[in-house]
Amino acid sequence: MFDLPDAAALPRLRPASSRPSLGLIGHGAFGAFIHPHLARFFDVVVHDPADSASASLASVAARQIVVLAVPLAQMRGVAVAIAPHLRPGALVVDVCSLKVAPLAILAEALPEHVEILGTHPLFGPQSGKAGIAGLRIALCPLRGRRARLAAQLLRRGFGLEVVQSTAEEHDRQMAYVQGLTHIVSRIVLAMDVPPLELRTTTFEHLTRMVDTVRHDSEALFRTIARDNPYAAEVRERFAAATAEVMERLGAP
Amino acid sequence: MFDLPDAAALPRLRPASSRPSLGLIGHGAFGAFIHPHLARFFDVVVHDPADSASASLASVAARQIVVLAVPLAQMRGVAVAIAPHLRPGALVVDVCSLKVAPLAILAEALPEHVEILGTHPLFGPQSGKAGIAGLRIALCPLRGRRARLAAQLLRRGFGLEVVQSTAEEHDRQMAYVQGLTHIVSRIVLAMDVPPLELRTTTFEHLTRMVDTVRHDSEALFRTIARDNPYAAEVRERFAAATAEVMERLGAP
Repeated sequence: MFDLPDAAALPRLRPASSRPSLGLIGHGAFGAFIHPHLARFFDVVVHDPADSASASLASVAARQIVVLAVPLAQMRGVAVAIAPHLRPGALVVDVCSLKVAPLAILAEALPEHVEILGTHPLFGPQSGKAGIAGLRIALCPLRGRRARLAAQLLRRGFGLEVVQSTAEEHDRQMAYVQGLTHIVSRIVLAMDVPPLELRTTTFEHLTRMVDTVRHDSEALFRTIARDNPYAAEVRERFAAATAEVMERLGAP
Repeated sequence: MFDLPDAAALPRLRPASSRPSLGLIGHGAFGAFIHPHLARFFDVVVHDPADSASASLASVAARQIVVLAVPLAQMRGVAVAIAPHLRPGALVVDVCSLKVAPLAILAEALPEHVEILGTHPLFGPQSGKAGIAGLRIALCPLRGRRARLAAQLLRRGFGLEVVQSTAEEHDRQMAYVQGLTHIVSRIVLAMDVPPLELRTTTFEHLTRMVDTVRHDSEALFRTIARDNPYAAEVRERFAAATAEVMERLGAP
């Protein structure tokens, strides 16, 4: 058993050897983005299946904390693969944009002797490129007793605003928060808008929204706008509202 | 004949009696919003058909500068009504969100002895509520020689960024700039989104966009998304892109 870094003691720099070890599985856009932030408090070791030079899955899964930064589609495969290597009392954390589905997979695939904490950082490489202090993270604790310590570290260590919720409530809200922004941004990108010099303040807001989403993967888009259990409701409301607005414009 | 205030002399305060007189026709949301800004440099008199306590149309139309802050649907009626009262050398300015249609109306309905300057302030009561310095205005000079003086005053007096263009180029760009933001915002408003606590940075951009459009009139929406000669093209591209994105989500 081990403890997360004590947030009250954070200003004091610990020697590298006494810092908790953290295995980061997945070094894609998001994994690479959070790596330096995690390295402020943890001794980080990375495994990425696409990088043969990274540490082995077995050695990374044997750390005190294991962070899974993999797409939802790979969650079950990764969970099954790490299960035999997880140490008793380890804390497994996921950062998926959904919470119901990945937490169900982890609850089923991981041994009883590990703790499981669902998180969803409500930011990414674009919105967090100037720093993450002041940004939000959703916490959905599933199993174990270290959620409160984790929340403290996220607040005082990383400066994040922590919002705790159930996985269901998280997914319902995200179906709107992320579903809407991503659907609208994908539509604007698909329109291939010509270069525009006469820009309103309102258009600058639209541009900023599209720019934060522009480089996200199609896999993330499908996770948000299709795999979320509440996404169908949002898509239906969007389609109905679009039809209503277009009808208003069509009238003479 | 008279001159616009000399921008170079602006820091010196003129006595009220020596300031050019300006008639403001229309005191709706936008007219009321620009009134105090105009009052910094001009002796402003207002006529609003909905306010019987305002000055008469004839007296307001007889000023050195006449600003028309009326919806496009009322432009012809107002132009015909003011025509007999306009003084030789007067400068007539419109602030409509479109430029081709209102300038065609003014060119036809106003006497040859007045100058005509099309403008489109690319801001409004929401985006300009904390001040207008640094915001943009489009200028489409139609008739007369005072466009350059007006641009100077707008730049140095009001602190605006002035972008000059033809009426056609203005309307083509605005079909996207305003069409997209207003169509998307109306759709989001029509969706009746539930209250959301878990907000991403991207969603804050969407919210800011919707909030600047939320209180605009349905008449302004139709001007932007239906009456603009290029609006049909934008609506068609939006519909095609929406269908494409929804299809991508529908695939298994």
